[in-house]
Amino acid sequence: MIDYRSDTFTKPSPGMLEAMFKAEVGDDVYGEDPTVNRLEKMLAEMFGMESAIFCPSGTMTNQIAIKCHTVPGDEVICDHMSHVYIYEGGGIALNSASSVRAVLGDNGRLTAEQVADSINPDDIHKPRTSLISLENTANRGGGSCYNLTELKNIREVCFKNNLALHLDGARLFNAIVAKNEKPEEYGQIFDSISICLSKGLGTPIGSVLLGTKDLIKRARRIRKVFGGGMRQAGYLAAAGIYALENNIARLEEDHEHARLIAAALAKKDFVAVILPVETNIIIFEVSGRIHPVEFVEKMRENEIRVTAISKTQVRIVLHLDVTKEMVSKTIKVIEQL
Amino acid sequence: MIDYRSDTFTKPSPGMLEAMFKAEVGDDVYGEDPTVNRLEKMLAEMFGMESAIFCPSGTMTNQIAIKCHTVPGDEVICDHMSHVYIYEGGGIALNSASSVRAVLGDNGRLTAEQVADSINPDDIHKPRTSLISLENTANRGGGSCYNLTELKNIREVCFKNNLALHLDGARLFNAIVAKNEKPEEYGQIFDSISICLSKGLGTPIGSVLLGTKDLIKRARRIRKVFGGGMRQAGYLAAAGIYALENNIARLEEDHEHARLIAAALAKKDFVAVILPVETNIIIFEVSGRIHPVEFVEKMRENEIRVTAISKTQVRIVLHLDVTKEMVSKTIKVIEQL
Amino acid sequence: MIDYRSDTFTKPSPGMLEAMFKAEVGDDVYGEDPTVNRLEKMLAEMFGMESAIFCPSGTMTNQIAIKCHTVPGDEVICDHMSHVYIYEGGGIALNSASSVRAVLGDNGRLTAEQVADSINPDDIHKPRTSLISLENTANRGGGSCYNLTELKNIREVCFKNNLALHLDGARLFNAIVAKNEKPEEYGQIFDSISICLSKGLGTPIGSVLLGTKDLIKRARRIRKVFGGGMRQAGYLAAAGIYALENNIARLEEDHEHARLIAAALAKKDFVAVILPVETNIIIFEVSGRIHPVEFVEKMRENEIRVTAISKTQVRIVLHLDVTKEMVSKTIKVIEQL
Amino acid sequence: MIDYRSDTFTKPSPGMLEAMFKAEVGDDVYGEDPTVNRLEKMLAEMFGMESAIFCPSGTMTNQIAIKCHTVPGDEVICDHMSHVYIYEGGGIALNSASSVRAVLGDNGRLTAEQVADSINPDDIHKPRTSLISLENTANRGGGSCYNLTELKNIREVCFKNNLALHLDGARLFNAIVAKNEKPEEYGQIFDSISICLSKGLGTPIGSVLLGTKDLIKRARRIRKVFGGGMRQAGYLAAAGIYALENNIARLEEDHEHARLIAAALAKKDFVAVILPVETNIIIFEVSGRIHPVEFVEKMRENEIRVTAISKTQVRIVLHLDVTKEMVSKTIKVIEQL
Repeated sequence: MIDYRSDTFTKPSPGMLEAMFKAEVGDDVYGEDPTVNRLEKMLAEMFGMESAIFCPSGTMTNQIAIKCHTVPGDEVICDHMSHVYIYEGGGIALNSASSVRAVLGDNGRLTAEQVADSINPDDIHKPRTSLISLENTANRGGGSCYNLTELKNIREVCFKNNLALHLDGARLFNAIVAKNEKPEEYGQIFDSISICLSKGLGTPIGSVLLGTKDLIKRARRIRKVFGGGMRQAGYLAAAGIYALENNIARLEEDHEHARLIAAALAKKDFVAVILPVETNIIIFEVSGRIHPVEFVEKMRENEIRVTAISKTQVRIVLHLDVTKEMVSKTIKVIEQL
Repeated sequence: MIDYRSDTFTKPSPGMLEAMFKAEVGDDVYGEDPTVNRLEKMLAEMFGMESAIFCPSGTMTNQIAIKCHTVPGDEVICDHMSHVYIYEGGGIALNSASSVRAVLGDNGRLTAEQVADSINPDDIHKPRTSLISLENTANRGGGSCYNLTELKNIREVCFKNNLALHLDGARLFNAIVAKNEKPEEYGQIFDSISICLSKGLGTPIGSVLLGTKDLIKRARRIRKVFGGGMRQAGYLAAAGIYALENNIARLEEDHEHARLIAAALAKKDFVAVILPVETNIIIFEVSGRIHPVEFVEKMRENEIRVTAISKTQVRIVLHLDVTKEMVSKTIKVIEQL
Repeated sequence: MIDYRSDTFTKPSPGMLEAMFKAEVGDDVYGEDPTVNRLEKMLAEMFGMESAIFCPSGTMTNQIAIKCHTVPGDEVICDHMSHVYIYEGGGIALNSASSVRAVLGDNGRLTAEQVADSINPDDIHKPRTSLISLENTANRGGGSCYNLTELKNIREVCFKNNLALHLDGARLFNAIVAKNEKPEEYGQIFDSISICLSKGLGTPIGSVLLGTKDLIKRARRIRKVFGGGMRQAGYLAAAGIYALENNIARLEEDHEHARLIAAALAKKDFVAVILPVETNIIIFEVSGRIHPVEFVEKMRENEIRVTAISKTQVRIVLHLDVTKEMVSKTIKVIEQL
Repeated sequence: MIDYRSDTFTKPSPGMLEAMFKAEVGDDVYGEDPTVNRLEKMLAEMFGMESAIFCPSGTMTNQIAIKCHTVPGDEVICDHMSHVYIYEGGGIALNSASSVRAVLGDNGRLTAEQVADSINPDDIHKPRTSLISLENTANRGGGSCYNLTELKNIREVCFKNNLALHLDGARLFNAIVAKNEKPEEYGQIFDSISICLSKGLGTPIGSVLLGTKDLIKRARRIRKVFGGGMRQAGYLAAAGIYALENNIARLEEDHEHARLIAAALAKKDFVAVILPVETNIIIFEVSGRIHPVEFVEKMRENEIRVTAISKTQVRIVLHLDVTKEMVSKTIKVIEQL
């Protein structure tokens, strides 16, 4: 089976597994795990942010950040397809008792103007807008990337309106590699950034939330009460350190693979629309002649797994467990459909 | 001043005021206010529902109903402009920790198909859909009314998917009068109905939530903990009884007044679009030559108050404190603009 | 029936009813009810506080204050028998997602030392202590009163530990009259004060929350989302103004009546312990020979209603609907038991 | 350093570490991690319960269980020193919006009578009692164990009053070994059981919640929205399987070590009270001559770490990283104090 369902399916390479195996550990709830501490410091420095906290998942880092930036009754502005809104179990309402202003962005990306237009006036009938949450790359936008200029403009809107700005950076390194950016450019723009280690970076478990010392101090409280405080978490953090040292530059391979597969799809008449392929995700509509579920089934018969993400769309995600050979095989399968 | 800003601005007529201050009262928190008990019984019987509870506001009856029908982490489907979503301070998230699926309806009205399409699959990434909340008449739809057939179809979707169905009937009697319906037809369709007494019906304070005995028992708990339990509330309930006995049929006058004013507006070239006038609300867009706020100001100079409800729209609400003479004066003012 | 169950059972006097009837009203949700505005201003000035908000109940003013002073995950310190903890439906958890540190006070009163000892250290395993909530008079303490000196000491503890200090003053005027204090002395000590108008002061409905402008601004939001925003609330506020002008000094009569009845009870051998009677409440234990429920029943046979508040305790509450004659009759009944 | 601060400090043995890194893994959010599935099945069968879910911590399994058994506004009865109440960051209020009735038990253990007496009547002023949460062994009770008879009696109270019964079994295997019980006896009594793998059992990370299929299905939703869904969690689950196969019987060693150290402490005159040592925890009061923090410091100078858990109490926890030699050394240090 070649598994394109998600980049969360990757398994550690032998090198990563060895790093995990040899990790020095302690009780992280007491702040005594040296490997967790090292990972947190490493990422904070990379992004030029004050502090960091390691968590079991990207959902937790996002949910903690949202909770830190809001009080119950607030409103969060985000794209209508953003992960925090449609894939985190309604957590903005459940965990933060906050409302969502779901804005129809451009393949998952908001403009500064859209953000400004979505801020509620100071009126007791309306929730208080307090947070903008962006996603880069945008999963449901087909791995689309923001321009730094637009992000800086959104930052300006936040300054003017006293709003916090969070980045769901589940696949931020894909954007950084694709657009040849520097992590610290993001650190200067955002109040908090969630970095996922178990997607393109290939670790088994874990995400890191970055922010100010004060924010991360509050995050430690929330992590505890959500049950995200882990004991000898250094085994997991060691994989993160390995990934940061070894798996960033190679994301370009995944992007190249995505482009190759997308090119093959583009030639097929049952493929109606392919979202622009900027990183490791391909989202395309299949035409009326074939239903997405049917396409998924056909691929599966050829030992290839992809996902139907809506009534019309299919998603293919590239990652480090997909080799060049697998991509070639996939292209052949597509050509023969 | 002629005040068209809202039908919440009405003041009790002398007859209503007399009824209020002759009311027999008791401590309603202990269930001992005979006038409150009579009002609750009266409305429950009128709609053919088991039980009822009197509350300080329509926001409270809606919010209690939503809390009764959901558990934290659920999702409520409603029109994207519905009162429960945009005018109740983010209460669905704050009070019920539930998410909103805001659907783009037809002037505030959803179809059974839209409802069916908006139900989440059984997937841990998605909130569990548990409640459909409709609004009749739909305030932001320009006082639009549902067809009973569509409501019955939505009821079917709810049965099939094990969903609760709530009606925000803040202006339900306007719909009932306009479409010559019977209250019990609504009682048969909805699991809970919120009836506001302080809009078209003209009482100073109060709304009533209708539902099963079990739901209303739970509602009494929630009313208490929200702080909505009042003591000698019979003074307010008496106004409600008076309104039910005297102010329903006369809503037709408000509708006639609305049609007259809308006809006058339709002749003006600065009026771009008028939503169909079905009841006591007129919502229209002013064209580019004049801004809504400017229109509001012009009217105010003529001692008429209306509201700009968006960057393009103005709202005019008719009610029992607006006489025929006031309507004539208003039309003259419009004609001279 | 002579009703000693609660001072919430009082009905407006003819004078109060006339004041209500003649009130000038407007839509208070829009801030346009002149009588509500006058009541709010009047109480704020009386206590030397910046601002005030009128609400449907004392539960709502307390719950809003607690919500203003906490964020989810905080802890509130209060007496283990305080109204906010045991009679508001679990609202501290439900409305504010905050924990309670229930301290065993002296008849409902905490000392500064107890407060200091109950503050949690800065430890992620523990909720963050953020609020002290006191009650004066303390209902379940038998209407006991604080000494201002102790309150000032508690204020000091709050300053040192960055804690907010709220007063549930449901019966604060009873304390002020009994101890010959001035309202502004309380305004100087507390961050927020809840004043109930429908207990000893005798109005049908309503409580007022006092605080800074900023706190009351936030309170207006919360009142709205809880559904406590009322329209022509001036009818109720007028009763409050009447009560402040006419019903404060007469509380001393209720206190005198309470002492007389308590003296009669003290002579009976089935009365085990009577809490010190400082204001209008008598709480006593009945001995093993007779069960509280039995005592309640016996009194009811004599057309007197009292309440069994626990397995051993009975409560009698004096108020303005209890005349001197009723007290004499009650004493006779007790003597003959 | 000999670390007696907690049994959470243990590090995996070479055998456990080998089991971990040979684990077969998959994406557990998709239910595809075979090792996680095996651990869940193994524990469910051991306790004779229908289903199980693996989580990052015991706090999460407890908090999820409490959320499954309550709705906002409910009340949980537990010992006043129970972990769910005092060491989980106020999670009962924060995560479940529920109140706590904190009962003064016998070294952390409640009786059926205490439970029955703590259930609220059906009264809107009171939260609805819906859950009893017990802890076995009780950490702050000095590792005390329940008798199965008492647990069965509590079960009866729950049946009669329609209450759920949860067990925080963070150290349940210590009780089972100490009292020679069988896991399935617990499965028959409780609606949900939380088993911690990273305390006495010695794994680095993880707890398992046991319950009915329906409860665990709902738990998966809550785990997701709290951010506890992990990807290749099989590495952690493998440690759990190893622990269940190798580390249960040896808990008796920890108990023996605890008794030896307690015996040494009992001879010292600065030790005032030692809670009965039933399992692997020793809690004792130090007398007025020496402060707990001073004792902790003295031990630390001798390379032994213990914890001051209150102003008078010290806690020592035995676990598998403490050898017989370390115990002997510890006893010598105590003797020389």
